[in-house]
Amino acid sequence: MERGRPIITLLTDFGLDGAAAICRGVMLGICPDAQIVDVAHSIRKYAIADGAFILRISLPYMPPGSSHVGVVDPGVGTERRPIGIRTGRGDVLIGPDNGLLLPAADALGGVTETRLLDNRDLWLPSETSSTFHGRDIFSPVAGHLAAGDAPFEEIGTPLAAGELVRLDLPHTRTRRGVLDTAVAYVDSFGNIRTAATPDDLQAAIGALDDGVPLVVEFLAPDGHATHREATQFGRTFGRVARGASLVYVDSDGDVAFADNQGNAAARIGIVTGTPVRISSA
Amino acid sequence: MERGRPIITLLTDFGLDGAAAICRGVMLGICPDAQIVDVAHSIRKYAIADGAFILRISLPYMPPGSSHVGVVDPGVGTERRPIGIRTGRGDVLIGPDNGLLLPAADALGGVTETRLLDNRDLWLPSETSSTFHGRDIFSPVAGHLAAGDAPFEEIGTPLAAGELVRLDLPHTRTRRGVLDTAVAYVDSFGNIRTAATPDDLQAAIGALDDGVPLVVEFLAPDGHATHREATQFGRTFGRVARGASLVYVDSDGDVAFADNQGNAAARIGIVTGTPVRISSA
Amino acid sequence: MERGRPIITLLTDFGLDGAAAICRGVMLGICPDAQIVDVAHSIRKYAIADGAFILRISLPYMPPGSSHVGVVDPGVGTERRPIGIRTGRGDVLIGPDNGLLLPAADALGGVTETRLLDNRDLWLPSETSSTFHGRDIFSPVAGHLAAGDAPFEEIGTPLAAGELVRLDLPHTRTRRGVLDTAVAYVDSFGNIRTAATPDDLQAAIGALDDGVPLVVEFLAPDGHATHREATQFGRTFGRVARGASLVYVDSDGDVAFADNQGNAAARIGIVTGTPVRISSA
Repeated sequence: MERGRPIITLLTDFGLDGAAAICRGVMLGICPDAQIVDVAHSIRKYAIADGAFILRISLPYMPPGSSHVGVVDPGVGTERRPIGIRTGRGDVLIGPDNGLLLPAADALGGVTETRLLDNRDLWLPSETSSTFHGRDIFSPVAGHLAAGDAPFEEIGTPLAAGELVRLDLPHTRTRRGVLDTAVAYVDSFGNIRTAATPDDLQAAIGALDDGVPLVVEFLAPDGHATHREATQFGRTFGRVARGASLVYVDSDGDVAFADNQGNAAARIGIVTGTPVRISSA
Repeated sequence: MERGRPIITLLTDFGLDGAAAICRGVMLGICPDAQIVDVAHSIRKYAIADGAFILRISLPYMPPGSSHVGVVDPGVGTERRPIGIRTGRGDVLIGPDNGLLLPAADALGGVTETRLLDNRDLWLPSETSSTFHGRDIFSPVAGHLAAGDAPFEEIGTPLAAGELVRLDLPHTRTRRGVLDTAVAYVDSFGNIRTAATPDDLQAAIGALDDGVPLVVEFLAPDGHATHREATQFGRTFGRVARGASLVYVDSDGDVAFADNQGNAAARIGIVTGTPVRISSA
Repeated sequence: MERGRPIITLLTDFGLDGAAAICRGVMLGICPDAQIVDVAHSIRKYAIADGAFILRISLPYMPPGSSHVGVVDPGVGTERRPIGIRTGRGDVLIGPDNGLLLPAADALGGVTETRLLDNRDLWLPSETSSTFHGRDIFSPVAGHLAAGDAPFEEIGTPLAAGELVRLDLPHTRTRRGVLDTAVAYVDSFGNIRTAATPDDLQAAIGALDDGVPLVVEFLAPDGHATHREATQFGRTFGRVARGASLVYVDSDGDVAFADNQGNAAARIGIVTGTPVRISSA
């Protein structure tokens, strides 16, 4: 039975001008059979939480046992550590210890083993730069793992999972008729993904039926609403008129807010992290 | 004789933040040998005609017998149907029944068989979302077809080709000295591709010789010209000075209008669908 | 011993709307086993020097013996020649003779053989367009070379290396305390890469120690400074506060200027080719 080629996925904030290609070249030089899957390279520069969000929702759809490289790394060249994580599903995550990888690890069966990438035999043999660990450390280590010429245990010294840096992700609270959460991600359609689950929303407002009237507010740090609008719950975009807004459960199982065939985030001017309140109307 | 890996192409309006990668992961999970070719993911959001244009000009250059997934799908989750089309050349097209796929099918030898994608055994086994059929239906069906573990006949119930939704594409009319057509697409160089063929242009203005003086007008819905300029026919960009405009036959065999090393569409402010008139000067 | 699939890399200024995919389709039609690596497609339109920069820094990280296609080609359809270059490392470069390929050839062991692409048997069999040589000439020739069904000698008539068009790249001069160079590239982070090497900088200002105070000036063509700021040398971004600037040696071994977690080029308004002076403070 043919197994297919070893898969390495790659997510960065490198943009589209060659740095990601260099990583691909390094991987293929070490593992010529690798099937490289680009997850995204247009993550907002230095936006660790955005990268973590995309890794969390994307990687569960990759074949189990893949290697994943994530590089959103404002601390490159400082004391932040390069790490490798093995997950319950058998995948391996490679990247900086800045919180980028942990939400995805949780979505892949949880962390089973963590190591510091300090085995320099697996790095690129040339002198290591202090600004491009994607090329010099993360890609070659992933290449060796994918090629099967180094087991996970050889990538470096064991670390305790509890030592890893965790992102401070937004919290969600519910009370009668009111859900308080925050914007977890704004996608390329301008759809506003919140940190709340359908259970959270149901706990606040009751049954999630098509057409339930709601009020959505985006809040300033001091808690006053910078934007407030009447909307409704809908199970599909087609439920509302073109350009009208709705609260819905997105394809990743999160509560989201969008304009049907419009760009809600651009209309309202919303960025990741903004507090949002959804209430019964 | 080695046949190469089965090819699946992918065109979407998903942008660059991970949704296309999820589709790739789903395909590779089902067909580990697939060679995935990204056609484009930066199609204007919801612009079915733009997606249809790019599919029509791109897919004929893919190896015959490929599977093609197209997702520009403003009606996702509504009554619009998910479909598969088999073409004369042996390719298969998978996507929404909204007109996106038919121009490409015509360019691949015409529609030979059409089916509704209602065999849920070929869908992603988890619960199907109402907003991401690219992930839940189109990619897994294409993966099963490419892997050869489902023949085309198994994807679902037969449909009559005449039942499919067709786009209302721009018409072209010619009279003595005048060609009336419309903008079919604005490419990333700002070159303005029209819906007219060289035969149309020749019928209007006579022989297409380098340097023939022409007038190009872009028209408002009421027929008055919002922009008018004197230009010339040229067989190559180098025919005119840098920054000067020309009417030419583009690499897809369509009549087009461009600035040599400039961006004509940005200069004039033109979008897809604008009526355009080309006349002898 | 498995050798891996033949690699073809692809760099263009085509953007993201399908033209690069057409090239990929043509290559895979001729060489079904090809592993295509996209280097970049968002090179500034017609910016030959930008494309040459990215090829020079990227291609050395691709496996030796790869085929590389580069298309930034404002002169397509004019007298500029389509060429193939064999390099000391065994790689082949395919593209227009406009200076795009030579810096990369130098980085791959130098030019060992050059040929005009005039063997039409290796071109796409349909009529050749005058605006899309990437599809009609460069991609099919690279496909045949990668497939091994045409040796390099068959791509066309030999050319003397000295006949090739060379870019006029920026010069660097040093005197006591002053380095005069120019902006070679602005990357997607807004980091300003200069044409100077660390040796150049050391010759001007002495030892490159963390914290050495410097002055950076960007100059107008008449030599007066349009922007002047006090900064420092740093070996890592983390050396300076977030938002503060530094002069550093980038991951390609060039002297560069950046804001830590900011976009220096956007802040200052800098484009490729701008003269820059770095002086001891």
